[in-house]
Amino acid sequence: MSNNNIERAKKEAVVKAVEDNIERNMIVGIGSGSTIIPAVEILAKFNREKNVNLKCIPTSYQSYQLIIKYHLPYTTLDINPIIDVDIDGADEIDKDLNLIKGGGGCLVQEKIVASNSKKLIIVADYRKSSNYLGEKWKKGIPIEVIPIASTPILLKLEKLGGHPLLRMASAKAGPLVSDNGNFIIDADFGVITNPSELNDKLLNIPGVVDTGLFIAMTTKAYIGKEDGSVIVMDKEKEND
Amino acid sequence: MSNNNIERAKKEAVVKAVEDNIERNMIVGIGSGSTIIPAVEILAKFNREKNVNLKCIPTSYQSYQLIIKYHLPYTTLDINPIIDVDIDGADEIDKDLNLIKGGGGCLVQEKIVASNSKKLIIVADYRKSSNYLGEKWKKGIPIEVIPIASTPILLKLEKLGGHPLLRMASAKAGPLVSDNGNFIIDADFGVITNPSELNDKLLNIPGVVDTGLFIAMTTKAYIGKEDGSVIVMDKEKEND
Amino acid sequence: MSNNNIERAKKEAVVKAVEDNIERNMIVGIGSGSTIIPAVEILAKFNREKNVNLKCIPTSYQSYQLIIKYHLPYTTLDINPIIDVDIDGADEIDKDLNLIKGGGGCLVQEKIVASNSKKLIIVADYRKSSNYLGEKWKKGIPIEVIPIASTPILLKLEKLGGHPLLRMASAKAGPLVSDNGNFIIDADFGVITNPSELNDKLLNIPGVVDTGLFIAMTTKAYIGKEDGSVIVMDKEKEND
Amino acid sequence: MSNNNIERAKKEAVVKAVEDNIERNMIVGIGSGSTIIPAVEILAKFNREKNVNLKCIPTSYQSYQLIIKYHLPYTTLDINPIIDVDIDGADEIDKDLNLIKGGGGCLVQEKIVASNSKKLIIVADYRKSSNYLGEKWKKGIPIEVIPIASTPILLKLEKLGGHPLLRMASAKAGPLVSDNGNFIIDADFGVITNPSELNDKLLNIPGVVDTGLFIAMTTKAYIGKEDGSVIVMDKEKEND
Repeated sequence: MSNNNIERAKKEAVVKAVEDNIERNMIVGIGSGSTIIPAVEILAKFNREKNVNLKCIPTSYQSYQLIIKYHLPYTTLDINPIIDVDIDGADEIDKDLNLIKGGGGCLVQEKIVASNSKKLIIVADYRKSSNYLGEKWKKGIPIEVIPIASTPILLKLEKLGGHPLLRMASAKAGPLVSDNGNFIIDADFGVITNPSELNDKLLNIPGVVDTGLFIAMTTKAYIGKEDGSVIVMDKEKEND
Repeated sequence: MSNNNIERAKKEAVVKAVEDNIERNMIVGIGSGSTIIPAVEILAKFNREKNVNLKCIPTSYQSYQLIIKYHLPYTTLDINPIIDVDIDGADEIDKDLNLIKGGGGCLVQEKIVASNSKKLIIVADYRKSSNYLGEKWKKGIPIEVIPIASTPILLKLEKLGGHPLLRMASAKAGPLVSDNGNFIIDADFGVITNPSELNDKLLNIPGVVDTGLFIAMTTKAYIGKEDGSVIVMDKEKEND
Repeated sequence: MSNNNIERAKKEAVVKAVEDNIERNMIVGIGSGSTIIPAVEILAKFNREKNVNLKCIPTSYQSYQLIIKYHLPYTTLDINPIIDVDIDGADEIDKDLNLIKGGGGCLVQEKIVASNSKKLIIVADYRKSSNYLGEKWKKGIPIEVIPIASTPILLKLEKLGGHPLLRMASAKAGPLVSDNGNFIIDADFGVITNPSELNDKLLNIPGVVDTGLFIAMTTKAYIGKEDGSVIVMDKEKEND
Repeated sequence: MSNNNIERAKKEAVVKAVEDNIERNMIVGIGSGSTIIPAVEILAKFNREKNVNLKCIPTSYQSYQLIIKYHLPYTTLDINPIIDVDIDGADEIDKDLNLIKGGGGCLVQEKIVASNSKKLIIVADYRKSSNYLGEKWKKGIPIEVIPIASTPILLKLEKLGGHPLLRMASAKAGPLVSDNGNFIIDADFGVITNPSELNDKLLNIPGVVDTGLFIAMTTKAYIGKEDGSVIVMDKEKEND
């Protein structure tokens, strides 16, 4: 499948997700990553043409800049602590709608925003969909850590059976620094059959700020298919 | 009991803790807070006079500065990821040696260091000792949070039954900023009968970096009494 | 003079400053510190009653929280990089309208906002007014520094003739941490006859983020007097 | 000239710089960037084989990690505020030994360390050497800025005649974040005939933490040539 088809698949999924879920006067969470760039453009057009008076909360410096670029009204969790709908991408989504996120390094703010949203709507292309997390996304679970703790956390992740790597930057020397000033470790745990248990273990390691495992948070997922159609996965009936 | 007696109680506890636990060539974690100021002085004297070649890892900017002031050799978790003994204070210590920490705002680094130590030795005066956490320390559980998440986390802590307050600074305008650039919420949950369960709930709130509940981490506690004697509490036989 | 009179003096100054300078549709910078608390309340009332459609940009976490508390519309320098009027307090103001700021620890964001404002309006009570900076404010020039550079910067400030102290926190152990995650040094240089020259010297020290010397930035100052009257100091005719 | 020859040129320059400048018991600053990787290896071998008891201060997370990887003793500016020799690379070096640094994003810590060193020794290959800054390095002057100030600073840099770009990350979504949690702007000012004046103008913009212009800081530069020889440039006799 060509890149063009993938881009079209994502776009169709975004359009359907926006039409199905966005209503007048909503507070909307704006996810991060490559899928979100067309999503913000589509959302901005929708806001302008339907005049629906949205207010948007970003999940990263990237999505903050996109909100401003596309002239969407900006708000914050301090002003609007309850979000109506959060639209975000994912690196992988399993049959139970659990997610791996954080390939783009924004997992902490993404999870904060998602956890304060009445609905988390995930938009992705078909390549991200799997039975179990770790089947498709091979780079490991992104984990944000306090910098001084990174070395002992790498040791602890190995003891838990992972293959962890400190993520390096390429636009600067040394390790990548997150929007919160922390480091990101990508820890490969193979195919994950019990992501909730793994997430709890990771959260209990001091110095771990949060993980890219989003367990039981997704309300619906819109998966763009190769042929341009969109499959909607749902909490109750996941594989419709 | 006078302040002088409390200071003496702390000091006796520190002296005994150092003599019992510190050996040649050890990597030593240095806690934070008011108890630690005499502890570092005593440890430095011990290191110098017994020539035991200690290396010290701080748990805050405060203890980093104390290490330097008292000419103790400094190291880091990247150089020495396994600590032999961590000596720290506590705001409260229960009969099972669970702790409330973070009155001094350093809970994240304190928990990172404690979690990478073979032994966590707590030094406190008798006023900090209780049956259940929350009996003595009435200011609430200190919780370090990502700043953008503080408002919704305050709401979530209320739903969990707490009375949370964002800690304000007094040496600057506005909220206190932690050594990691985050905010501290003090959440009063009354007397806590199941601190492990509460800690897990708190850690699962996105935006919570860590909590001041230190569950099942303490190896021994040295409690200075009013009369100058020191009681040693132990994991196996807590109330000896 | 009683505290009540000082509060009244500040308040009268704020009321006059708002009435003279705030117009419909303006982007308004909101300063930090104790003077700003009544200022935001007055500004919010003005915005509501006159329905002037202001948008406000904060200079600290404190003023961000005040903007939200008083329901003023919030914006940012990324959305509105040109501010019409910035209203702020000062720790001292000399006859040329140069300022010492930063007692509240927010000098970096305050100077960023002031430097992007068409007008900087300072509100203070009469105790802050002097001929030369350093005559009234005896705690020294606040200087925000990168933490790893604080020790050598203290040495350099002494070589420049200052008496510098690292500002300590009181709501946590150890040094105060600024809203930007940095340290604050308060450096007493006595009475400062050439603040511009001193500011340039300080800015040229690597690790100095910015200083509390605000040189030639103030448009007008509103000084509340003991008797409740307000003196307006102006760039052109300073001592009217 | 092949990459191998460039690597050899750098290496020869490093070896000569170390042999000429490093002596027993010195405190040594360790620069950042690609040149520093072989430099730390060479320095570590020198330290081990000659048993010269060096202590090393890093200029970034990258060089901190290199110090640890190659088992060099680590110290900090708080313990050793006066550095004997700082060895660093550069993106460009002019005939007066002024530098452009910050391609690797570490300019703030690099300048802090350099400014506290008795000697700044620059190691580079011949491609970095020019008459005027901006002749060879075409990506612009790296400038570290406080994130909330980045948009108005971009406007101000344009007014100063620059072509500024906010540096984007590639290992995460959105803008690059520096080791200090800030943003980096690369501002192209063409060929710079008065770098000192430009540096002062940039430092006077509130929100600018520091710039990649290192003016009159270099003691000596070791330039590796195509043929494997090394030219030493000196403050007094620059083009020997």
